Amino acid sequence: MSMPISGPNQATNATTASAPKNKGGLEGIVAATTAISKVEGNTGRLIYRGYNIHDLARTTIFEEVVHLLWFGHLPSQQELTNLQQRFAAERTIPENVMVTLRALPTSTEPMDALRTAVSAWGAVAIKGQPTVDQAIALTARFPLFLAAFNRLRHGQEPLESKPELGHAANYLYLLTGEVPSEEHVRGLNAYLVLLADHGMNASTFTARIVASTESDIASSIVAAIGALKGPLHGGAPSKVQDMLHEIGTPENADSWIRDAITTGKKLMGFGHRVYKTTDPRAEELREMARVADPQGFVFTRRVEKLAISILEELKPGRRLYTNVEYYSAALMASVGLSGDLFTPTFAVSRVGGWTAHVLEQAGNNRLIRPEAEYTGPTDLAFKPLNER
Amino acid sequence: MSMPISGPNQATNATTASAPKNKGGLEGIVAATTAISKVEGNTGRLIYRGYNIHDLARTTIFEEVVHLLWFGHLPSQQELTNLQQRFAAERTIPENVMVTLRALPTSTEPMDALRTAVSAWGAVAIKGQPTVDQAIALTARFPLFLAAFNRLRHGQEPLESKPELGHAANYLYLLTGEVPSEEHVRGLNAYLVLLADHGMNASTFTARIVASTESDIASSIVAAIGALKGPLHGGAPSKVQDMLHEIGTPENADSWIRDAITTGKKLMGFGHRVYKTTDPRAEELREMARVADPQGFVFTRRVEKLAISILEELKPGRRLYTNVEYYSAALMASVGLSGDLFTPTFAVSRVGGWTAHVLEQAGNNRLIRPEAEYTGPTDLAFKPLNER
Repeated sequence: MSMPISGPNQATNATTASAPKNKGGLEGIVAATTAISKVEGNTGRLIYRGYNIHDLARTTIFEEVVHLLWFGHLPSQQELTNLQQRFAAERTIPENVMVTLRALPTSTEPMDALRTAVSAWGAVAIKGQPTVDQAIALTARFPLFLAAFNRLRHGQEPLESKPELGHAANYLYLLTGEVPSEEHVRGLNAYLVLLADHGMNASTFTARIVASTESDIASSIVAAIGALKGPLHGGAPSKVQDMLHEIGTPENADSWIRDAITTGKKLMGFGHRVYKTTDPRAEELREMARVADPQGFVFTRRVEKLAISILEELKPGRRLYTNVEYYSAALMASVGLSGDLFTPTFAVSRVGGWTAHVLEQAGNNRLIRPEAEYTGPTDLAFKPLNER
Repeated sequence: MSMPISGPNQATNATTASAPKNKGGLEGIVAATTAISKVEGNTGRLIYRGYNIHDLARTTIFEEVVHLLWFGHLPSQQELTNLQQRFAAERTIPENVMVTLRALPTSTEPMDALRTAVSAWGAVAIKGQPTVDQAIALTARFPLFLAAFNRLRHGQEPLESKPELGHAANYLYLLTGEVPSEEHVRGLNAYLVLLADHGMNASTFTARIVASTESDIASSIVAAIGALKGPLHGGAPSKVQDMLHEIGTPENADSWIRDAITTGKKLMGFGHRVYKTTDPRAEELREMARVADPQGFVFTRRVEKLAISILEELKPGRRLYTNVEYYSAALMASVGLSGDLFTPTFAVSRVGGWTAHVLEQAGNNRLIRPEAEYTGPTDLAFKPLNER
């Protein structure tokens, strides 16, 4: 591993280093090799198949990026057109999935609805080993499942996709029934590009383990959705907004942040397992948030700067910086998404990476099966029920 | 780690050893500590919370074993009665799950139906952090979901559970509509006890990773079902039967096995990532298969002995022995289960262990988030679409 990360990671660099100490979270353990994305935690760089995330976020659309992730190169205009036609052709919801979504109570969490819809879809649509056709079919349908459920829970009928709209635009259209503004489409596209892959994060790792048993791609992706749902992974961006609301005013920020840190409350949107500097995705999202809502941005940025300096003061050496969640919330709110659609929309993006990893795992597979350290007793004398 | 396993495992024993070499499968990497079960690969021992699997398999029922896994001790008669009453009270299928199951085509794989039913159930029934009540509610329902789908796909209406029947007996009743024989109940109980937990296998590891994001227990278990489905994990027991049918006669066995091994065909039911001797569960299942079908057993046993000796001859040092799948198929067939219910019935058992591991992970959590070794390019020059 060539990443210049300090600490336990070094153990994986050289066979003469000492063995990594198990802290229960597989920190610094190399679980797989991948040519899909590279996360440089110390320098704050993120690369998709050789390309810097900043170039991609500013210039490409989601369909170009998933082409890059799946096929290994950025598409030509013709390849992009072909892929967009494939996406448009896949924009259907089978009857059994619609029945399943209609049967869910309106109070269902959208992540649970998505997990269930993908499972129900996989049950009828997926057979055999993972293929790129299946990856396209799955990725194309995430916005459909989510938007259908979102409309149903608000008492509205799901809409038909518009074939002339791209992936991001069609998602917003299916949610609202209105063709979205260019600004919203650009914002959502950048978000979808930025979040599409990120090394061996927990949901991607989950997807690869499932694929490593030679299970099917739907099983892998359903598993990954469940992992992304957790607040320690993708489940917390709306909590950043809750925190900003709670802080309320610029004057309140310093004391609120100090109080939160000293009482052990979690500061939402800061700190990352791998990044020990600002997350490069947060930098892109920050600029977009600045453009989308210049007034709201002043406060959000002020809280960010304060939080970083107070974290440095109260937790010196921990290197806690802005993570991707901090400005994700602002960006997603600016394109009109409700808070409980933030994490599902993260999934709309990440399914591109998940499916690329499933294909990579299946292409050179070995069952991922670690060991456990047993800490319980070993030789208890057994007594049958009537002697207990 | 105190397991006497050679090779990369040693690296986790001592901080002066060299770092484990990544073979892509996390072999010998300790991914978690657990007090639930211990797998001794070299000596062929399996322990659930201090008790040897042989004692448990011969004397206990499934409900006693899940009590042991969840609560850490074998139940008294009163505790067992309480748990059985809890199981009986949980034997309901919410309307949305039934609608979802009815909407699945009859050709749906039962594992996909189970995965979808558990997801749909979790969407309406599960909120918040994992609890033992949720573990009970989930475990109690696995036979219901499976039996309901199995009846629906055969054009029959699902049945109501019988509160006076134990877990294994009620499962067989729900499938067939007939109160099963004591012999069948005993056989299925032993199977459910033997398969309930097994260290850090791929599906359990998957469940723990999902739990480590602080996601919910339904998301964890849905993910685990997807992992178990893969033929490298739980998805292959019916293939043992296919293989035995293909071999056909005792006279054919020697040449068939040699031919399979030399042409790189997989010999079903032999070899295990951890066990380098006979799987202790296979020993128990072998004895049960002997009793259940003495005539069929002669052939199955003959093929087993031949396969082990030919494997030793053609792959010396690989230590490939009978694994749990070899006699699982015979046992499950003997209690009347069809081949495509073998892996789902594995899940009926393993959900006990999965839920115990989710509770253990949630009780002392750290996000499981490894690293990847990036093998792709890093500094490709980006060109926008119109320049490609």
